[in-house]
Formats: sequence, C-alpha cells, structure tokens
Amino acid sequence: MKELKDYVRSIIDFPQKGVIFRDVTTVLQDSEGLQLAINSMQENLKDLDFNVIVAPESRGFIFGMPIAYNMKKAFVPVRKKGKLPCETIEESYDLEYGKAILEIHKDAIKLGDKVVIIDDLMATGGTIGAIIKLVERLGGKVVKINCLIELPDLKGREKLKDYEICSSIEYEGE
Amino acid sequence: MKELKDYVRSIIDFPQKGVIFRDVTTVLQDSEGLQLAINSMQENLKDLDFNVIVAPESRGFIFGMPIAYNMKKAFVPVRKKGKLPCETIEESYDLEYGKAILEIHKDAIKLGDKVVIIDDLMATGGTIGAIIKLVERLGGKVVKINCLIELPDLKGREKLKDYEICSSIEYEGE
Repeated sequence: MKELKDYVRSIIDFPQKGVIFRDVTTVLQDSEGLQLAINSMQENLKDLDFNVIVAPESRGFIFGMPIAYNMKKAFVPVRKKGKLPCETIEESYDLEYGKAILEIHKDAIKLGDKVVIIDDLMATGGTIGAIIKLVERLGGKVVKINCLIELPDLKGREKLKDYEICSSIEYEGE
Repeated sequence: MKELKDYVRSIIDFPQKGVIFRDVTTVLQDSEGLQLAINSMQENLKDLDFNVIVAPESRGFIFGMPIAYNMKKAFVPVRKKGKLPCETIEESYDLEYGKAILEIHKDAIKLGDKVVIIDDLMATGGTIGAIIKLVERLGGKVVKINCLIELPDLKGREKLKDYEICSSIEYEGE
C-alpha cells in the first residue's frame, strides 16, 4: 500500500545548490495520491470552528481550494505584489532562498473571521508568518496553520510558537 | 437569489489601460459563490470520459484542483518558466497583454491520457492554445476546455475551433 509520503519526489539542488526540493506535482499527477493528500489535510481540520481559508500563490491554491469547497468555506488568495487588482495591504518577508512581498485584498477578511492558513510546505515559517500578519492586520484570527509538508529542522514552529500548526508529512534530518 | 455572475467584480484599466479585468476573488471569498462556481464548471464535465485535469498557474489551480478532487482525476500543473523542478517541455505564447513561456513536466502526461484543460478565463485563447500544444506534444488528447469565464469578443473559439469549449459566464459587448 503506497503511503502519502511515497508520492513526493525529492530533487537535489533545486532551485539552488544545497536545497532539497520536495516536489508535490508527483502527488497530484496520481489520482490516488491527490485523494490521500487532500483527505489527510482535511482530517486535521475536522471539528474546527473556522470560516475562511487563506492560501498563498501558487501551490497554496492547490491545497486550499479543494478543502474550502469540501468544507463549504470561503477562500482568500494571498498573492505576490502586483497581481491582485483591488486595494491591498502588503508584507515583505525572507524566504528560505530569496525575498518577496505578499499582498491580500483589504476587503477579503472581515473583523472576527476565523482563518485557517493552508500551504504546501512549511520551512522556516517566513511565508506563513507574513500571511499571519496580513490576516491579523485586517482583524482576522488565525485558528490553525495546515501544511502538507513540514521541515522541522528549519524550526518554523519556534518562529510561530503562538499558533497551532499541523502537517501531514515531515522530513527531519534528511 | 444571487447568480454566479453577480459574484464577479469588474475592474476598469487593470492591469493596464483599456482592459476590464474580471476579478474572481470576490466569487471565492464568499463560500456560496465558491460552491456555485465549482458546481457550475463541474456540471459541464458530467458524463465526460477523461482522466487528467491540466491547469495553468495560478488561477487555473484554483478551479482545477477542487474538480480533480471531486471527480477523482489526476491534476497536472502548467507553470511559468523556471518553476517546475524536473525535466519540462515549454511553449511561448502571446497574452491579451504581454508574452510568456509555459512549462509542463515531461512525465506528467502519458500517451493516451484524456485531458480536460481548466482555467479561470478564456480571452484570445493564447494561454489555452499553448497548453494544448504542451499536452499534445506529450501524447495526450484534449477532450474538453472548461473555463469559468469567457470573453467571446476576443474570439478564442475561432482560434481553438478543433476543440470542445465550455464556460459558465460570458461577457459579450461589455
């Protein structure tokens, strides 16, 4: 029986030397892998009280949207600077490799919204940290962070210690 | 009763003067709009024999993935150059405004795969045309093109006349 982790492809030195890239496209291009991934992430949100899923461009969209549909929640995209057409607020942050600015539509989160943040992978927690700031600046409350893959060696949980975090696959000491 | 089209926000002169941008984020940030959009697109695939959904970065991911999950199909992302980590083939194409190169993983489509292409919007058909070429070069057969929004004035259907196309919302003469 193939497990979820078996569907992930690991690529050495992408996008730069020293990084092992965890490729989720091989999970998705197998219809059974895709079911396993979404079901596993969704299981982690069972019985949780929330109304909005926020996910970053572009792999966050892949995992956030099916769960939003299945659980009948709203979906709010966080995008790279310049992509969202209406009034936004922005946060800049450091990536595992590089730097970026993320934006969210100002009217996308309402005061008191209970938000789950979904992404494919949590490394240092830089991306997730920026998304938390965006959500909180608009008056939303982040009730859970849900990633398919987590790299505990990069200590994202320490950085985000005030938040509840769950993941379906871990790569530790690899 | 609010209809699907009522959830779309139209923005004048974005991303450049003379373009009316059809913003789907307002569909998604309402949980009922999100259900309507996915259900409507999925209805257009009922009884169709296919096994893979191919969708382009990044708004195509938003609509392609929930449908892939619901219908138990495989999902293959088409991305901008440099984003996919393994061996790819590429196609360049003209956008309504600008130019771009799209890539697909070489091993993502198998000979004889029956492919549905999903995107948020069809304008001139440039993006969809490039995706068709990528799929066919890998031996897949495009059995349907399914977009949430279509702009018939830009004649995408003429450009793609050998293919079956469906959409849920049209903006004509607007």
